[in-house]
Amino acid sequence: MNAVRVGVVGLGNVGSGTLEILARNSAQIERKLGCPLDVTAVSSRSAASRTLPAGLAPPMVSADWRDVVANPDVDIVAELIGGTTTAREIVEAAIRSGKSVVTANKELAAIAGLDLWRQARQAGVSLAMEASVCGGIPIHAVLREGIAADRILAFFGILNGTSNYILTEIERRGASFETVLKEAQELGYAEADPTADVDGYDARSKLALLASLAFGAHIEAAEIHTEGIRRIGPEDFQYAAQLGCTIRLLCSARQDEAGFSLSVRPALIPRSTILAGVLGAYNAVWVRGEFGADTFYYGRGAGSLPTGVAVVSDLMRVARALREGHAGNMPPFGHVELDPAPAVPVAQQKHAWYLRFRVDDRPGIIAALASILAECNISVDAILQLPSGNKKNLPFVITVETAPGEAVQAAIARMAPLPFLVEPPLALPMESGL
Amino acid sequence: MNAVRVGVVGLGNVGSGTLEILARNSAQIERKLGCPLDVTAVSSRSAASRTLPAGLAPPMVSADWRDVVANPDVDIVAELIGGTTTAREIVEAAIRSGKSVVTANKELAAIAGLDLWRQARQAGVSLAMEASVCGGIPIHAVLREGIAADRILAFFGILNGTSNYILTEIERRGASFETVLKEAQELGYAEADPTADVDGYDARSKLALLASLAFGAHIEAAEIHTEGIRRIGPEDFQYAAQLGCTIRLLCSARQDEAGFSLSVRPALIPRSTILAGVLGAYNAVWVRGEFGADTFYYGRGAGSLPTGVAVVSDLMRVARALREGHAGNMPPFGHVELDPAPAVPVAQQKHAWYLRFRVDDRPGIIAALASILAECNISVDAILQLPSGNKKNLPFVITVETAPGEAVQAAIARMAPLPFLVEPPLALPMESGL
Repeated sequence: MNAVRVGVVGLGNVGSGTLEILARNSAQIERKLGCPLDVTAVSSRSAASRTLPAGLAPPMVSADWRDVVANPDVDIVAELIGGTTTAREIVEAAIRSGKSVVTANKELAAIAGLDLWRQARQAGVSLAMEASVCGGIPIHAVLREGIAADRILAFFGILNGTSNYILTEIERRGASFETVLKEAQELGYAEADPTADVDGYDARSKLALLASLAFGAHIEAAEIHTEGIRRIGPEDFQYAAQLGCTIRLLCSARQDEAGFSLSVRPALIPRSTILAGVLGAYNAVWVRGEFGADTFYYGRGAGSLPTGVAVVSDLMRVARALREGHAGNMPPFGHVELDPAPAVPVAQQKHAWYLRFRVDDRPGIIAALASILAECNISVDAILQLPSGNKKNLPFVITVETAPGEAVQAAIARMAPLPFLVEPPLALPMESGL
Repeated sequence: MNAVRVGVVGLGNVGSGTLEILARNSAQIERKLGCPLDVTAVSSRSAASRTLPAGLAPPMVSADWRDVVANPDVDIVAELIGGTTTAREIVEAAIRSGKSVVTANKELAAIAGLDLWRQARQAGVSLAMEASVCGGIPIHAVLREGIAADRILAFFGILNGTSNYILTEIERRGASFETVLKEAQELGYAEADPTADVDGYDARSKLALLASLAFGAHIEAAEIHTEGIRRIGPEDFQYAAQLGCTIRLLCSARQDEAGFSLSVRPALIPRSTILAGVLGAYNAVWVRGEFGADTFYYGRGAGSLPTGVAVVSDLMRVARALREGHAGNMPPFGHVELDPAPAVPVAQQKHAWYLRFRVDDRPGIIAALASILAECNISVDAILQLPSGNKKNLPFVITVETAPGEAVQAAIARMAPLPFLVEPPLALPMESGL
């Protein structure tokens, strides 16, 4: 049977993994599809200097993406350059040329996915984006098709491998955030500018995409409350362990009568939950459905070949649709249309809380803090203090019972003038729903 | 848009869960599909006495499955009666009538899935069977589409919830197999005749299906070496813990140059692997791909609603294909055709081994056993004995380095005449590949 023809734009990390899989696994791909998946065009800004994998000799190798998009021998364009400006031009131009598109671009999918899908639907082509979230985990396929019949009540994700690596190293070795970040940068696990990873913005884009898929609602990434991991230290893991918990940068999403509650922030989770076993640069998603109960998905969050698997699996699915003459039938968000999402403001989201203080020790500290908590209608659950010889800069923890975020923030604001506080209190939600 | 019309045959555990989801989640299903999924016919041997969920009033309710299959207002037949004789008649009759079929029937899929798929393909209809393995985990969707581009090197599954419940209760409480089985039967977790669960046959059917999907090879369930969990006692978990391991009824599947190595048997797995965290009646599958590295999937193995999610998700996928006019395009085993599978005989499969003896203590035991192992070219790794006041019926353990199963079996045969052995040695593979 005739080959389906692929054009690949971008030969960076993901692009080279994609080409390697298309070259090395071509026989099995053909056995699954019933036809070959041929690479007929490739572009990269430094196209001339790129070495292609053995066995791949696309007729077109160009430095200009427009050549790939305009090529009549390309049926599907894989947009693998990242970023949102040129990438968007590429995707829109491909759709206008009547070509289906596979993208690995989470930022683009998060800010423009719905709009691009509408364009694709109108043009009668497919848009697929498995690789945009959790490269190695087929979480799009799971939510869109595998458990499509369920109604998702909540899900929790560890969606950023770099920050999970940093947190689990702080936990394992008792090192500081700064030390581990520096090492991770030296090893190439973290970027020179680590903001997107350690401040939660990368995870936020992914959470927005998964929430749209899971709930059929249009979630704006920019509206999701996001906190990073810079303030988490080894002492927090020690206190968490005393509470039977560990700490992860948790992406959480829930729907109930009040609306959608979403956030990205470090949170305490029980050590007994399977999510707590996710170490290093792995990603995972824990899903609670109304009918199917809880399921859990785990794998590499990134990497050239794991993400390449997601891209090529999407190419195979789109190729099958093209051969059957029905491109464009499967909405990338799993729903024919997305509804607007009534969001529960983070201030109203309720949790039990872990409050960690750093104080210069003196009499009356507990009394002062406890009075403020009481004034804010917050019930103290436990007071923990690990043994320490220090009287200066002493960490200790108060856990409190379920309270809305705004009550906790109000209490923290009232605590600001207290002379014994070395820094503002750190408040982490304690996630018991998994 | 016109509804797609479903006929449900069988209103037992899975059938009633399927109807409940179709009734309670109909609005969301329509938002995903773009059309309703209507139940137009239902059959059950005791149809008259069944209560259907609120909101469902199918025009046809019959005691005879033939009425559903012959009904011109049915587009897709869901076969949910189980067993292999009548179920096969139903599926074949539905295919002959030009109807697509969704089945939850692992035995039928394992013994006749390939043949039924050929019939479906010839008739231009779909055959789908997500619910046949690990009800709550969309492992078919994952292997068939989500990571279709990968080449699966190996996978390991905990595929039988009842035996996993029994093993984890033995581990947790130190109770005997017999005690826990009896309780499980009283609680309805285990059948009056527990053979299919505790002797591994249920897991074997599921392993055969997953291996066909993962490898594109035709795997006969009856040819898979299968051992059950009846001999596992609390002392085995104690010894395993000393080795940093736990014990699970492990379904394992590997492919390498020699062919396919498959087995179902209790095995030691490292406590540090995420698979060791699977407790109670849950199922899980750990997959190693050549490109995507390791991924892991976890959820309910059975149950009315979790399995219903799988059935209804399949119905949605088939409904979408019917509406697009291309039923029958997605092979249920993920490959256009399955190849014959060269199997590595279990006797040649190599592992490190855990050998547990029960002896009446006397001098010379270690010497006698160690000599036989040496004669069989097996290297001893460690000798473990937990403190015990007993001299009679004393358990102790020898672990040995990697050796083929046949060498271990030969050694066990030579040990048979030894007068101090209370029972034949128990040999469990130690699985280090995960």
